[in-house]
Amino acid sequence: MHAPDVIQKKRSGEELSHREISFIIQGYTNGQVADYQMSALAMAICLRGMSAQETVWLTEEMIHSGKTLDLSDLDRPAVDKHSTGGVGDKTSLVVAPVVAAAGVPVPMISGRGLGFSGGTLDKLESIPGFRTDLSIAEFRKALEKVGAALIGQTKEIAPADKKLYSLRDVTGTVDCIPLMAASIMSKKMAEGISGLVLDVKVGSGAFMKTTADAAELTELMIDIARGMGRECVALLTDMSQPLGRQVGNSLEVIESFEVLKGNGPADLTALCRELSAEMLVLGRGADDLADGRDTYDRLISSGAAIEKMCEIISEQGGDPRVVDDYSGLPAAGGRCVVTADSEGWVHAIDTAAIGHASMIIGAGRSMLGEKIDHAAGMTIEARIGDHIMAGQSLATLHFNQASSADEAETLVRQAFSIGQERVNGPQLIKERRGQELGREIAAT
Amino acid sequence: MHAPDVIQKKRSGEELSHREISFIIQGYTNGQVADYQMSALAMAICLRGMSAQETVWLTEEMIHSGKTLDLSDLDRPAVDKHSTGGVGDKTSLVVAPVVAAAGVPVPMISGRGLGFSGGTLDKLESIPGFRTDLSIAEFRKALEKVGAALIGQTKEIAPADKKLYSLRDVTGTVDCIPLMAASIMSKKMAEGISGLVLDVKVGSGAFMKTTADAAELTELMIDIARGMGRECVALLTDMSQPLGRQVGNSLEVIESFEVLKGNGPADLTALCRELSAEMLVLGRGADDLADGRDTYDRLISSGAAIEKMCEIISEQGGDPRVVDDYSGLPAAGGRCVVTADSEGWVHAIDTAAIGHASMIIGAGRSMLGEKIDHAAGMTIEARIGDHIMAGQSLATLHFNQASSADEAETLVRQAFSIGQERVNGPQLIKERRGQELGREIAAT
Repeated sequence: MHAPDVIQKKRSGEELSHREISFIIQGYTNGQVADYQMSALAMAICLRGMSAQETVWLTEEMIHSGKTLDLSDLDRPAVDKHSTGGVGDKTSLVVAPVVAAAGVPVPMISGRGLGFSGGTLDKLESIPGFRTDLSIAEFRKALEKVGAALIGQTKEIAPADKKLYSLRDVTGTVDCIPLMAASIMSKKMAEGISGLVLDVKVGSGAFMKTTADAAELTELMIDIARGMGRECVALLTDMSQPLGRQVGNSLEVIESFEVLKGNGPADLTALCRELSAEMLVLGRGADDLADGRDTYDRLISSGAAIEKMCEIISEQGGDPRVVDDYSGLPAAGGRCVVTADSEGWVHAIDTAAIGHASMIIGAGRSMLGEKIDHAAGMTIEARIGDHIMAGQSLATLHFNQASSADEAETLVRQAFSIGQERVNGPQLIKERRGQELGREIAAT
Repeated sequence: MHAPDVIQKKRSGEELSHREISFIIQGYTNGQVADYQMSALAMAICLRGMSAQETVWLTEEMIHSGKTLDLSDLDRPAVDKHSTGGVGDKTSLVVAPVVAAAGVPVPMISGRGLGFSGGTLDKLESIPGFRTDLSIAEFRKALEKVGAALIGQTKEIAPADKKLYSLRDVTGTVDCIPLMAASIMSKKMAEGISGLVLDVKVGSGAFMKTTADAAELTELMIDIARGMGRECVALLTDMSQPLGRQVGNSLEVIESFEVLKGNGPADLTALCRELSAEMLVLGRGADDLADGRDTYDRLISSGAAIEKMCEIISEQGGDPRVVDDYSGLPAAGGRCVVTADSEGWVHAIDTAAIGHASMIIGAGRSMLGEKIDHAAGMTIEARIGDHIMAGQSLATLHFNQASSADEAETLVRQAFSIGQERVNGPQLIKERRGQELGREIAAT
């Protein structure tokens, strides 16, 4: 078999066989298929697509390029949640301790922020001492002891995906539904989980700008999970404005602590509660969604959830005192308030622009490997549907690099569209998919 | 400007600007744009296409990646002919000496054979001592002294094309009309010619399988030539069966000598005559095509054409005695006759399969850089429309590696489709394009 023939086949729109996909991914992992061949194939996949079956095979081969965790010795089925990425999305920092506090193991392998989207690892690393680079042995130990652990993709987990992810970033092949689905699912399926809750973001601050694209990605990921005998439920959720009020690593950690203490903003709290309930059902920690929501409420009000967060932080080398004393977290020296030019209602927020602005002031990175400023970020003070007076604050920037504040301020101001008619805010949870599977579980 | 943004733009089907194309080609030449970025862009071009204007810019940038020849000090406009590649196509070995014998300079930069298609350089190198690697200085000297020189692409000529050509070969992006057009034309336009005759092959032994594809490639190449102020005429010619009777390097050299002596097969002779006439008109060596054909006939019958071939061979270090004594050329030890299984008429010949079979016995290469056997090849003894008796010879294989003969023999036998109805042979010259330009020239 020759790589150019496989590339040519996909180029002409044909379906690749399992053997061909296996040849390519194994060859790419061991260096026999070159980067320039993989990037040509990735582009052909972007433009010609891949069937659900091809995507399942691609995911399987990426999983088999490395090690997989075997969590069958745990007494409960492990579950995880994955978000396709957005601005201000810190739900992982809430749902992991909540679900673990209910006794359901959460082995969470997360990514770093790139471009306009933030990353769970960067957020966690604003906690002094917190290690996201646990070895597989440490990860297992943390999982057994605390019930949840949050780490980055190790070299052992899906190395073909790790290589392809970096390549896609520099070859214009990032936003490609089958490649995104295979990338996400290869990492998640390698975690040894039996159930996965997907939070598929839709809107101006998400990779998927339309519900149709989001639905396509969702169905593909659900197909992959089912093809591998795992349970999977997906929520399509709004990303037409930042989730919660805080954007930026340290700021988002604080906001997630507030949610765990029951003081979080309404939208973020509602989504964390729903995602937790779904995870609890998949992990047999709740009989149905209503029971899952009750469990969430109980774990928050009893303090068990925030207590679990302290345990996770301690276990991963961090200082748990930050949970009660936010002064232990990085804070920025500079402030700048972005005000509205005119009175009216907030009609839309260009959320990717908000993400870019926070990247510019140091909270994110434009390239993998770039250093970030954990203290930088912004507080969003107006939401879609809010009535705003001229001169009223739309957002407050928190920065250390004053040189970049002007550009960010302009971007944020322009991101807000203010109109003269009253509008309603968007619906947070747009759709739930993989439902009948959820029902089967609820019924057992 | 960032390469991923340019790739993404082409991926989404937009037209690239001159600045963007320039950024990519300059970056690729100096290593700032990586192979894996170029291959992703090449695939996007294959699937999204390029406008004529983009292709002109691409060609210009590839030319400017290296040196161009300035032949303005020659007293006559120089011309060249380019064939898009086929099986048994040795017209360059005939038209170069004929046109030079008429006093029109022919600076010919040719390629090597790859896959099923043969290459002029490989053919010439079966002549003992013949050097195709002349320096630019030697090339100019040969051109001034003899009137024609045939060499390979040097490192100085269109290096971006040289790099991209190798990359396309291993990334499934060879048969892509804008990339083919830019590749061909960047080399030809760098030669310093004022007129170019294109021989665009169509059929089972060509890259373009249909007249529609061939016409598209042709129009694009004519557009590029005109965009650069050069005259260009194209003939669309049949490649549904090998051209002439011989396939393989040494065998094709002998056949081209026979054409130069007036003893060649009808199809090959007719095409060489027509291509020469077109070149003579563009090079002001004939008033019109009829005059060009007369000139061709006169140069053949007078012996001036074969004499010019001797001069070219001598000038490039080869032994001109082979023109009269073919025993000085490499000959294969093994023979094998491929016979027809049944009586009937030859309906079709899978000409790419004939090319592959000759590659298998050593006459061609499957990868750039592979060594070839100049003696290996085959003589085709039946043409489309011929009536064949069962057991009659279809072709004779000439080989040194007996191990590969069986596979080649089967391929060649299966390449002939024999049916029970009488059919006509294909029309050799299907179409002429760039006509009005030819007329303008003829009228001056």
